[in-house]
Amino acid sequence: MYDRDIRKDEEMKKLLIEKAVEKLPNSFAPYSHYNVAAAALFDSGEIYTGVNVESSLLGLTICAERNAIFHAVAEGEKKLLAVAIVGGIDGKRTEYCVPCGACRQVMRDFGDKDSMIVLSAKTPEDYQENTLEELLPFSFGPESI
Amino acid sequence: MYDRDIRKDEEMKKLLIEKAVEKLPNSFAPYSHYNVAAAALFDSGEIYTGVNVESSLLGLTICAERNAIFHAVAEGEKKLLAVAIVGGIDGKRTEYCVPCGACRQVMRDFGDKDSMIVLSAKTPEDYQENTLEELLPFSFGPESI
Amino acid sequence: MYDRDIRKDEEMKKLLIEKAVEKLPNSFAPYSHYNVAAAALFDSGEIYTGVNVESSLLGLTICAERNAIFHAVAEGEKKLLAVAIVGGIDGKRTEYCVPCGACRQVMRDFGDKDSMIVLSAKTPEDYQENTLEELLPFSFGPESI
Amino acid sequence: MYDRDIRKDEEMKKLLIEKAVEKLPNSFAPYSHYNVAAAALFDSGEIYTGVNVESSLLGLTICAERNAIFHAVAEGEKKLLAVAIVGGIDGKRTEYCVPCGACRQVMRDFGDKDSMIVLSAKTPEDYQENTLEELLPFSFGPESI
Repeated sequence: MYDRDIRKDEEMKKLLIEKAVEKLPNSFAPYSHYNVAAAALFDSGEIYTGVNVESSLLGLTICAERNAIFHAVAEGEKKLLAVAIVGGIDGKRTEYCVPCGACRQVMRDFGDKDSMIVLSAKTPEDYQENTLEELLPFSFGPESI
Repeated sequence: MYDRDIRKDEEMKKLLIEKAVEKLPNSFAPYSHYNVAAAALFDSGEIYTGVNVESSLLGLTICAERNAIFHAVAEGEKKLLAVAIVGGIDGKRTEYCVPCGACRQVMRDFGDKDSMIVLSAKTPEDYQENTLEELLPFSFGPESI
Repeated sequence: MYDRDIRKDEEMKKLLIEKAVEKLPNSFAPYSHYNVAAAALFDSGEIYTGVNVESSLLGLTICAERNAIFHAVAEGEKKLLAVAIVGGIDGKRTEYCVPCGACRQVMRDFGDKDSMIVLSAKTPEDYQENTLEELLPFSFGPESI
Repeated sequence: MYDRDIRKDEEMKKLLIEKAVEKLPNSFAPYSHYNVAAAALFDSGEIYTGVNVESSLLGLTICAERNAIFHAVAEGEKKLLAVAIVGGIDGKRTEYCVPCGACRQVMRDFGDKDSMIVLSAKTPEDYQENTLEELLPFSFGPESI
């Protein structure tokens, strides 16, 4: 179990970003050439990674963040604590990649909106940090259904 | 052309909500029984409507807001000014329906984040109003690609 | 009501293809430059059209066929009889556009697999015709849930 | 590397189905209660698993097959050889689960349509086998773009 406060755990934040950076070469983006990788921490303490995978039928493309989260759930995880995101055109990490609206919505299914954090990173030392509530205010989630 | 400021045009806001309410009976939600309808105003002055349509393959379900926007683009529209949303379980309008993250992201493709508004409504007189920027802060859109 | 057998109604097939061709200029495909339009006949006798609409978040892209079908349902339709599809790179109709797997699945929700037809067309006189069953054999649909 | 012909490798087929069955308890389907798991063999010889994960925003739901494939690509895989699928209401394996059209389309991005196989299984001994071409005839894929 991970029983610390991720918002204050600088070491874990760095580790998450490093894990995302490691996977970036696997990003499969032959159409947009916009490569993205993500690493997601769950309350078990395990870290799961994903990359964006583009389909020739563009609308079936998956983002890195959802790829990581869906895989984690397939491994039995339920409670999402943090997601780190890195990427850019041709894998050059020149911007802070923020999650798209669809990924923010899926984070809402598995993360607590006030304590879950998203790290949009260039390097393990250079990132922007937001809570899910900051990224998806006025939201609805599983409690609404 | 619609050349007014939608944020100050109370008459148009009411009309949008009324148009959404009119379509609500067409919502096709046999699995969730959560019925939603939307009306979207474009800069031509035309209003387009949509409802949520659920597929038996749940992941192919479309929301009311995107249904309205995608149809509008098919009719030649490009610039989205406002979207009104109504709905609830069994079509009962007991809550203010906010757009999901995926719909917010698609709004970002066709709307100006600072001036475009979303009306989450119960009745033409009872609604919450937000700019797209308020609903999807720290966003990216077509300008990033 | 449309009470003829679409498989034998050459006039209606031509009309569907013409309606799709007319909408092709509205296709919004700034990323792939692969433009597609579709026209869908429902049992009311009404024809609904759609185009592909690409999102800067590629995975939120919608196909022409689903755009037409979802709009039709929003207008109260339930029973899909036929879909005509036209398109190609830069809107040049040099190939027979077949529907993607996701669109075939959504057709399955509203069409009868043995009698519904898909027309993949270059011109109103030059098209390939398939039943939904031919395009999506061994399928499941709303009856399975 | 896996250098055998999967269509004749009964042992591997059984193993794939067993791997899918093992993951079935992780299926997250709180809305449909239709649980599905999949196992995918790539040409490296590695097997990747996935389950369906439903979102409270139904349209963001992912199928088991795509979950497995997208994760495999994130791990560096490119060439898909076979997918086994198991599942049913409340996880009871009383039917042969076929892949939806969207999953068939994504298989088309990574599998050879004539040699790739899909196993719709109840048990390791009781399954239906189809090539991708049988499941998605008249298809298009990455070669078309």
